[in-house]
Amino acid sequence: MTELARKALLPAGLQDVLPGTAAREAEIREKLMASLAHAGYDRVKTPLVEFEESLLEGAAPELSTQTFRLMDPESRRMMGVRSDMTPQVGRIAATRLVDAPRPLRLSYSGDVLRIKGSHLRPERQFAQVGAELIGVSSAAADTEIVLLALEALDRINVPFVSVDLNLPTLPVRLFDAFGVKGDEREALIEALERRDVAALKGIDGKVTDVLVALLEAAGPAKTALPKLKKLELPLGASDELYRLIDVAERVLASGLDAALTIDPVEMAGFRYQTGVSFTLFAKNVRGEIGRGGRYRAGGTAGEAATGMSLYMDSILRGLPDGDAISRVYLPLGTPQREARQLRLDGHYTVAALEGAAEAKTEDGARIEARRMGCDFIYLGGQVMPLSA
Amino acid sequence: MTELARKALLPAGLQDVLPGTAAREAEIREKLMASLAHAGYDRVKTPLVEFEESLLEGAAPELSTQTFRLMDPESRRMMGVRSDMTPQVGRIAATRLVDAPRPLRLSYSGDVLRIKGSHLRPERQFAQVGAELIGVSSAAADTEIVLLALEALDRINVPFVSVDLNLPTLPVRLFDAFGVKGDEREALIEALERRDVAALKGIDGKVTDVLVALLEAAGPAKTALPKLKKLELPLGASDELYRLIDVAERVLASGLDAALTIDPVEMAGFRYQTGVSFTLFAKNVRGEIGRGGRYRAGGTAGEAATGMSLYMDSILRGLPDGDAISRVYLPLGTPQREARQLRLDGHYTVAALEGAAEAKTEDGARIEARRMGCDFIYLGGQVMPLSA
Repeated sequence: MTELARKALLPAGLQDVLPGTAAREAEIREKLMASLAHAGYDRVKTPLVEFEESLLEGAAPELSTQTFRLMDPESRRMMGVRSDMTPQVGRIAATRLVDAPRPLRLSYSGDVLRIKGSHLRPERQFAQVGAELIGVSSAAADTEIVLLALEALDRINVPFVSVDLNLPTLPVRLFDAFGVKGDEREALIEALERRDVAALKGIDGKVTDVLVALLEAAGPAKTALPKLKKLELPLGASDELYRLIDVAERVLASGLDAALTIDPVEMAGFRYQTGVSFTLFAKNVRGEIGRGGRYRAGGTAGEAATGMSLYMDSILRGLPDGDAISRVYLPLGTPQREARQLRLDGHYTVAALEGAAEAKTEDGARIEARRMGCDFIYLGGQVMPLSA
Repeated sequence: MTELARKALLPAGLQDVLPGTAAREAEIREKLMASLAHAGYDRVKTPLVEFEESLLEGAAPELSTQTFRLMDPESRRMMGVRSDMTPQVGRIAATRLVDAPRPLRLSYSGDVLRIKGSHLRPERQFAQVGAELIGVSSAAADTEIVLLALEALDRINVPFVSVDLNLPTLPVRLFDAFGVKGDEREALIEALERRDVAALKGIDGKVTDVLVALLEAAGPAKTALPKLKKLELPLGASDELYRLIDVAERVLASGLDAALTIDPVEMAGFRYQTGVSFTLFAKNVRGEIGRGGRYRAGGTAGEAATGMSLYMDSILRGLPDGDAISRVYLPLGTPQREARQLRLDGHYTVAALEGAAEAKTEDGARIEARRMGCDFIYLGGQVMPLSA
C-alpha cells in the first residue's frame, strides 16, 4: 500500500463524503426535514452518545450487539454510541416532553453508527431522516406516517416510489394461536423468510395452510386486498390483518402517487415493530430506501407510537445528481464590497488569491478561472461567461 | 431521583435539543454553510469515527487525550471518535483531493465529541461549522478566512461581532530568539496567560521588556497598530509580527462591519496554529463564538493552510430566537389533497387524528386546535384565524 492509500484508509463501512455529494446530501436532508416540519413534526436533536441503559431501554435486543460502547471517565459508567435514533426520540417523548400535548409529532435527522454492516447495507455509519407520531394507536395514525414518508419523498422527486405494507407480528400471532412452538416454529420462520412455499407445505399443521395463503396473497394492493379479505384467521390475528387492510385502503384513498403492495408475512428487517409496518422502495435502488411501523415509544410499557426512517444514502442513489454550481472567478483586485454583493445576489464566487497562482493580465485571469473550475469571470463590474 | 429524572439523565456535557431550538440550530447552520458555499468553499462530510492514527495524525497532542477510543471488531484496530474536524478535512485534502486544484477551499459542519468539557465550554458534544483554505501561505489567505467568518456571521445577523487577531507562536519565537529555556520559559508563559504584567516584570531578562510592550500594545486595532509598528523584535519574530500587522490592515480595509482588536501574545485555546490566528466574539456571549488560524493541513510536513470553526451553541446564544411558526389545524375529514396543497403553499399543518382527542363539531375542533398549539384552523376551504 502506498503512503497515500494508507492515509486515505478508513474502517470498513465508513467514508468521506466529497464535494458535490456532501452538499447534495445536506440539501436533500433539509428538504425532507422541511416536508416533515410542514406536516407538524417538530425537529429534535439527540446526543451522539448516552448512557447504555437509557440508549438501549425499549430498543430491540438486537440493537445492543450493534452498539459501540465507550467508558465515560466523568461518571465511570458505560455509554453507547447511537445505532438508531428512534429509541432516543422515544426517551425524549417519555421524559422532557412528557407534558407536551398528544399526539406528539417529532422529527429528527442524524448519523448513526453500527458495529457491523449488513449484506445489503455495508455502511456502518449512515444518515437517517425520520419522524415519530406518539400517543395514538389508530389506523389513522398508521396511515399518516405512511403518507408522511411518501409526501416527503415526493417533495424531493424520488421517481417511482413503492410502499410494501407488512405485518411482522402476524406470523408470531398465528404460531401462538395454533400452538406452534420450538423447532417447528423456527422451521416455519426460516421458510417464510426464504418465501419458500414448497418448504412451508412440507411442514405439517393447520398454520401452514394459512401461511401459504398469506404468502400467495402478497402482491399489488389491488389484487392482494380481495384475497386477504377472504382469509379466515384466528381471533387476534384476524384483527391485525383487518387493521392492515384498513390502512391499505386509506393509503389508496389518499390519492398519493406511489405503488402499493401488501406482504403480510414479511418479517426481515423489523426489529421492534408491534403492528402495521412498511418498507419503502424506489426504482433502480437496491434494497429499501426507508421503513417504518408501529411500536411502543420508550419500551414495551411505553406509549403507542408509529414512525418511519428514511435512509439518506439509498435515497441519494435513487435521485439524479443535483444541478452543477456555476462559479464566478474574481480576479485580483476585485473590491471586497463588490465580491460580497455578488454573493448576496446569489453568485458562487472563487476569489483570486495573492500567493496562489497569480494572474496579473486578463488572459492570465481567464486561464486561472478555468483551472479553478469557473464558468464565469467578473470583469469591469460585469459577470461574463468565460467562453466569451 | 424519580424514575422520570433517571430516564432523562444524560452524561455530563451531553444534551437533547428540543423543538424550536433544534430547528433553529439547523436553520442557522445551513445559512452559515450557504454563506461558505457562495464564497467557493465546497462542503465535505467526514466520518464520525476513523482509525486512531489517521484521526490524530497532524492533530495537536492535546487532542489525543480528548478523543474517545473504540475497538473496531472488523479490523481489530483502535478507532477514535472525532473530537475536531479540521484534521479530518486535512486528511481528505492530502488524500482523496490531492489532485484537486489549489487553493483548495473546503467547508464542513458536524458534531464533535470530547472526553472532557472546559470551564467556559462544559459541553462535551458540540456542533461546528468550519472552512479550510489549503495550499496558500499568503497574508491574503489569512485575510480571506477572517473575512469569510465575518461575512457568514453577518448573514445570520449576529450582532456586535468582534475579531481578536492573535499570533500564538510569537512568544515561543521570542523565547527561542532570546535563549529563554526551561523553568524561566514556563514562568513567562504562565504570566502571559494570566496577562500579569507585574509578574512578567519580576522575571529578569531582555525578553520581558518585549513581552510587556506587546501586552501593553494589545487592544483596538486603531491604537494597537501604531504601537506594534514601533516595536523592534528579533528577526523571525519581527517577520511574524509584520504579517499580523499586514492582515490587520487588510481586514480594516475590507470595510466589513466588525470591531477589530489585536492581541499578539494571546496563546490560550490555540492548539495547532502556526501563524496568524484569530478569535471571534459576540456581544452578550460568554467566551468565543469561533476561532481560526494558520496551520499545516495533514501534520507538520503538510500543506500550508488556514481555516476557522464557528461554534453553533455559542452563536445561538448570541442570536434572538427564531420566528415562531404559525400552525394550521386541519379538522377531521380534511381531504388529503387539500392538506398537501396547504403544505405546498407554505403552511405548517397539524392534522386531527382519529383515535386522538376527536372533535366532531366546529367548536370542538377549535378547542382541539388550541390544545395542539395552532393559531389557525382550516374551515370551509379557508385558513381562518383561531381567535375569529
